[in-house]
Amino acid sequence: MNIFTLDMTNVLSKTIGKEGLHKKDIVSTSSKLKTYNKTLWDAPYPFMELPSLMFQFKEMGQLADTIKKKHIKNLVLLGIGGSSLGTETIFHALLHPFHNLHEDMRNGKPRYFILDNIDPHKMNRVIEITEKEKDNTLLVVISKSGETPETISQFMILKETLGKEKNFRDRVVIITDKNKGILKEIVDKEGYAVLNVPEGVGGRFSVLTPVGLFPSLVMGIDIDEIVNGAKDMAAHIREKPYKENMAITLASILYLMERKGKHIHVIMPYCERLSGFADWFRQLEAESLGKNHLGATPLKSMGVTDQHSQLQLYVEGPKDKCIMFLYSAQEKRLIPRSFSYIESIDYLGGKDLKDLFYAEFIGTRLSLTEAKRPNFTLQLENINGYNLGALFFLYEMVITYLGYLYNVNAFDQPGVELGKIYTKALMGKKDLVKERKTTNRALSNSKTLISF
Amino acid sequence: MNIFTLDMTNVLSKTIGKEGLHKKDIVSTSSKLKTYNKTLWDAPYPFMELPSLMFQFKEMGQLADTIKKKHIKNLVLLGIGGSSLGTETIFHALLHPFHNLHEDMRNGKPRYFILDNIDPHKMNRVIEITEKEKDNTLLVVISKSGETPETISQFMILKETLGKEKNFRDRVVIITDKNKGILKEIVDKEGYAVLNVPEGVGGRFSVLTPVGLFPSLVMGIDIDEIVNGAKDMAAHIREKPYKENMAITLASILYLMERKGKHIHVIMPYCERLSGFADWFRQLEAESLGKNHLGATPLKSMGVTDQHSQLQLYVEGPKDKCIMFLYSAQEKRLIPRSFSYIESIDYLGGKDLKDLFYAEFIGTRLSLTEAKRPNFTLQLENINGYNLGALFFLYEMVITYLGYLYNVNAFDQPGVELGKIYTKALMGKKDLVKERKTTNRALSNSKTLISF
Repeated sequence: MNIFTLDMTNVLSKTIGKEGLHKKDIVSTSSKLKTYNKTLWDAPYPFMELPSLMFQFKEMGQLADTIKKKHIKNLVLLGIGGSSLGTETIFHALLHPFHNLHEDMRNGKPRYFILDNIDPHKMNRVIEITEKEKDNTLLVVISKSGETPETISQFMILKETLGKEKNFRDRVVIITDKNKGILKEIVDKEGYAVLNVPEGVGGRFSVLTPVGLFPSLVMGIDIDEIVNGAKDMAAHIREKPYKENMAITLASILYLMERKGKHIHVIMPYCERLSGFADWFRQLEAESLGKNHLGATPLKSMGVTDQHSQLQLYVEGPKDKCIMFLYSAQEKRLIPRSFSYIESIDYLGGKDLKDLFYAEFIGTRLSLTEAKRPNFTLQLENINGYNLGALFFLYEMVITYLGYLYNVNAFDQPGVELGKIYTKALMGKKDLVKERKTTNRALSNSKTLISF
Repeated sequence: MNIFTLDMTNVLSKTIGKEGLHKKDIVSTSSKLKTYNKTLWDAPYPFMELPSLMFQFKEMGQLADTIKKKHIKNLVLLGIGGSSLGTETIFHALLHPFHNLHEDMRNGKPRYFILDNIDPHKMNRVIEITEKEKDNTLLVVISKSGETPETISQFMILKETLGKEKNFRDRVVIITDKNKGILKEIVDKEGYAVLNVPEGVGGRFSVLTPVGLFPSLVMGIDIDEIVNGAKDMAAHIREKPYKENMAITLASILYLMERKGKHIHVIMPYCERLSGFADWFRQLEAESLGKNHLGATPLKSMGVTDQHSQLQLYVEGPKDKCIMFLYSAQEKRLIPRSFSYIESIDYLGGKDLKDLFYAEFIGTRLSLTEAKRPNFTLQLENINGYNLGALFFLYEMVITYLGYLYNVNAFDQPGVELGKIYTKALMGKKDLVKERKTTNRALSNSKTLISF
């Protein structure tokens, strides 16, 4: 199909010498994954079956249709981490970059506000905005576990500020676990519409469930395209020989690079519409693989912007990085010869901005390559739902393979539990007496201070 | 004054054992800086004199007053790296978080569009928006060198799309070097209003010049406050004994942490209004210190959001990070007892969202500390112009000290030059024949491909 092309020339030792990988090492790691890949598809992880199980989500379409009839002007999404990053990625990629600015830019679709933080400053501003349009604001509350205190608190607040209106109940959709959790209890009591996160699919692997797809439906995005892209990528990954298999090859490169001391994975889209994707990938990699004192650190960087911020460090700093470029540009815009009396900009006048964008990408990549900084490129022919679906599935599989290679469980996140308990202790949760002693002691020990 | 408090308890070995620093090592590094500090203020770098030289910028205020009379509805800022990050930081911190959304949120001030990238997709959308309000759009074009091809190209395009209107010339402000560069030539020919970047002040140290202050003036921000904060911070840094000196202590900690293998500096604001500051700091650190195969990698992370994305890696991943928290919260918002029939959320109902925000911060910090991950906290009593000015100046000095400790020139960026040349070669700049051969060869060598 050739809608994605992976170019790994600049990770190879034949290009960058001893900082690079020998092809035989890539082949050897990939062939391990080939064996794993076979057994994997015989007993797939639940997320791997999502693209072919979309019929499960028929109710989601019906609910979206009902919602559309309600003249919704604002979609307020309460969710954090895996409950918001997928939606943000899709919206960034497929909606107008200034969607909220004006009706013309959103073709009559609702504005959206994704509340992925609880800083009261921003929360208060969103309340001021939505209070003026109480009747036309849809709340989508997402938490796989149904227990996320940030999301629950936001919901408690918005229930108070928006909930006095008639038919408030009809403008709430909950997305959570089918069988348990606080949100499930609330649904049972209040009778809100509910959609479920399929069993065994963790937050960061949930973009192809109602978590990422329902908000997209509300925005009129063709989710079948997204799912079809994922489905075709799944077929590619399942069937392609390992040397032509994009997921296996990407995983091998990232693994071997980390083993060589490239502990930082820079993800650098040359494509503003993939800015959200980089944030989504950050969670996927960090939370899946950052365990047992291992795991590369993902680092988001935007081309061309960060050429003027981070490139100096990448070119001349420590050799601890592997750079993953994502490149895609479609639209054109002529650069006119506006100041033709200046000879030194002759090379720009009459060219296209798209060509400058491409030249900046190639120039940057080449300067990194000459400085022996390993890098590879995934070029996307276009940004659309299909390609985005394929991209999600590709990287979910890459991370699954990396979990196998690192020998870690890519699907849990034990390291974040303790912080959650201390938070609850500090908030006065009754049963956490011992933990509250610990937090109080820590606070009173904080005495090494300097003031201004 | 106690408007900033630096708490370094959790970088000390008495708190986190062998991953931490001995107090005597901090004192020893700080005392080196004490000696350096004395000579430094005798012959200060140009950026250090900015807070006391603001009288130079009187014309800036007059120009802003003239502009205000023109009923400007859109401020379009063309600039990248040091030419945009300062303004973005100030706007993020001091304007309404949904400033562009509605007149009510911006109190009659113009909307703003900061074009810090050249992806044609976004550029075209900004053109569509501004073309409808040609008469009311102000262009601020910023490039210290006056040679930035991205900014010049954008200017060439907008000159074409907006330039046919009468009095277009009166709605352009150029901020560039006084004596040289393409923008200076354009100003001389076209007669646009111009403001200068003082000599010897590099892009990433230019926020306290017209680069960051003029766009702020247009938005009605009190820039005297910003400058006063910087001035008072300068006095603190110049005069405080080294053990009570915030800049010296911060530089010592960051330096010693990097020497101990904490190669990644996480900057993690618990404060949405400081999101832009983290981006500004990223450039300042990476571009100033990323040289000679040295330099820590700055990594932006947002609290609480990234607790659900990056925290797992920080707690259980490699011990290669030092985490710098910035904390500030002022506003309140009661969490009502909305679902009082659920006992397990009793601990939230009746509390304030601000307290949850704080508890999440403390809980996260404690879980990192117990995992022996070094971290320190700069707590800000408030977010306002004064504190922001102080914060800018503080970190500019920290980076200056780090340049001294690393023995690198913190004020150049030689590593980005080659990429710029290759870009021009690819765009067909006539004199770059040899470089064009290199780029062509590299492109034709890119043959290790996998497709989907």
